[in-house]
Amino acid sequence: MRLKDLGERALLGKLATIGYPPGAPLPPGDDAGGVWMGDEAWLLKTDGFLYREVALSGMGPFEVGFRGVAATASDLIAKMGRPLGFTLGLFLPEDLEEAFVLELVKGAAEAARRLQAPLLGGDTNAGPEVALTVSGFARTEVPVPRRALPGDLLYLAGDRWGRTGAAIRAHYEGRDLGAFPAIREAAFYPLPRLELLSLKGLLRGSLDSSDGLAETLWQLADLGVRVDLLALPIYPDVLAFAKGEEEARGLVLYGGEEFEAVLVVPKEGEAEALARAEEAGLPLFLAGRIGQGNGVYFQGRPVPRKGYTHF
Amino acid sequence: MRLKDLGERALLGKLATIGYPPGAPLPPGDDAGGVWMGDEAWLLKTDGFLYREVALSGMGPFEVGFRGVAATASDLIAKMGRPLGFTLGLFLPEDLEEAFVLELVKGAAEAARRLQAPLLGGDTNAGPEVALTVSGFARTEVPVPRRALPGDLLYLAGDRWGRTGAAIRAHYEGRDLGAFPAIREAAFYPLPRLELLSLKGLLRGSLDSSDGLAETLWQLADLGVRVDLLALPIYPDVLAFAKGEEEARGLVLYGGEEFEAVLVVPKEGEAEALARAEEAGLPLFLAGRIGQGNGVYFQGRPVPRKGYTHF
Repeated sequence: MRLKDLGERALLGKLATIGYPPGAPLPPGDDAGGVWMGDEAWLLKTDGFLYREVALSGMGPFEVGFRGVAATASDLIAKMGRPLGFTLGLFLPEDLEEAFVLELVKGAAEAARRLQAPLLGGDTNAGPEVALTVSGFARTEVPVPRRALPGDLLYLAGDRWGRTGAAIRAHYEGRDLGAFPAIREAAFYPLPRLELLSLKGLLRGSLDSSDGLAETLWQLADLGVRVDLLALPIYPDVLAFAKGEEEARGLVLYGGEEFEAVLVVPKEGEAEALARAEEAGLPLFLAGRIGQGNGVYFQGRPVPRKGYTHF
Repeated sequence: MRLKDLGERALLGKLATIGYPPGAPLPPGDDAGGVWMGDEAWLLKTDGFLYREVALSGMGPFEVGFRGVAATASDLIAKMGRPLGFTLGLFLPEDLEEAFVLELVKGAAEAARRLQAPLLGGDTNAGPEVALTVSGFARTEVPVPRRALPGDLLYLAGDRWGRTGAAIRAHYEGRDLGAFPAIREAAFYPLPRLELLSLKGLLRGSLDSSDGLAETLWQLADLGVRVDLLALPIYPDVLAFAKGEEEARGLVLYGGEEFEAVLVVPKEGEAEALARAEEAGLPLFLAGRIGQGNGVYFQGRPVPRKGYTHF
């Protein structure tokens, strides 16, 4: 079967278990892989993308390099891993300007710096178009998989919900973001939040959201639970951009590229999680709860599954 | 300046220091990067390539996946790092067959398994042609950089010298390797050698050889020493393939893709290094010595610098 007929999700499902070790800190197919070293989990993650697919209007190589490290770091941090370093794998057309590549790597280094981790080199290859992979390693004593139990609460961390979706829509509609600085900032410099690590030991589960919130919640539901959304974070600028609440909800549910985390919090840990998040300066939004059953619902109505896939 | 005018080596030189941490276990631009964690160095390495550039006649996706993990592992092991896991970053045309991708990943998993390390997942993206990056992490108490001092001895580890060069030549000349099973094996399944780790604490320096032996020795000479080759390992099958000693020497010097290690051994450590290598079953070949000055010489005559570069 050809990949375009199989689909990316099915392909990843088949690949995830090949060579994956039993007893690993995280199950195959989770946001990152890892191994136990004594009582610590060491995580490794690679994420790749084509330049032209992620460079929105106004973004240059610096922003795309930044975005690359952010994407990989978001997966590691969502698993409670503290990033220790990143490497780049670059495919570059031979007639590309040197300055372009330097900006790309400087953007990656800036994201790494803000995450208190270094760049540790990488590799360059000639290729038909600009493509990147970013790898990162991290460690944690308490790796958090994608996991949920009925009765748990669903929190959204961070404040990029809907904003990155708005920026992507602005790109395709040729709209200017001059009046929406927070939307622009969210899409151009989506720095994952080390503050998430303050919740160590308090989470039942955690997922990186980069394929869109709805798709991320469906991945949670795939584990055998029902996800009930009761509210969505609709920021005033997203509402103003969208010119309507329904469209704004769509941007929150189907935006993508947030590099924020969806958190599953047991009821009994809620108070401490909220206290620690406040102390750390981590925005948390109570979005819903986990129930028995399956599927994803918003105020009782089914949330269709549609997210970005590569094939 | 465009990349094709700048050249890959100059580009890598400019990129290597961006965001690279001071005081790291290995200098920027070495075969791998890393960070200190207590008294252990944790290494991270990414290596990428286009499928069509490495798939010799008779190699399929399994062998190319195997080769990908081998390439990254070779860099880590040359630094005395024991690999702990690998991830893949795949760019795949959407009309590719699923079976092709499964074989690619199975080949990668097989190389990882033989190196006693797991695959830890990865990422897939649509792309114009099949391209891979392989990342790996490793740890070591004694990271070994590219380093040499006058008076040191130069050893070549392993037995693929000239053989991978012969396989590459056979590919371009349309020659069959049926009569040369060791050449075929060396090129198709170039497994790096965990036995190198038996030399822990005994090496002044170590370099992965994958751009060709001559280029690797030039990189050593670039550190400010003279490399004097006194002998080269010319295996009987390589000599038979080449039909002449001069051509065979060329295959050893300019072959590439060996994924073997060039070792710099202080004179006082030679006896123990030889003893440990013999006990571990690691082939070692005394190829020359390090002197004051610069450049690379074979029996007193200059060795031209020519190796594979991507731009």
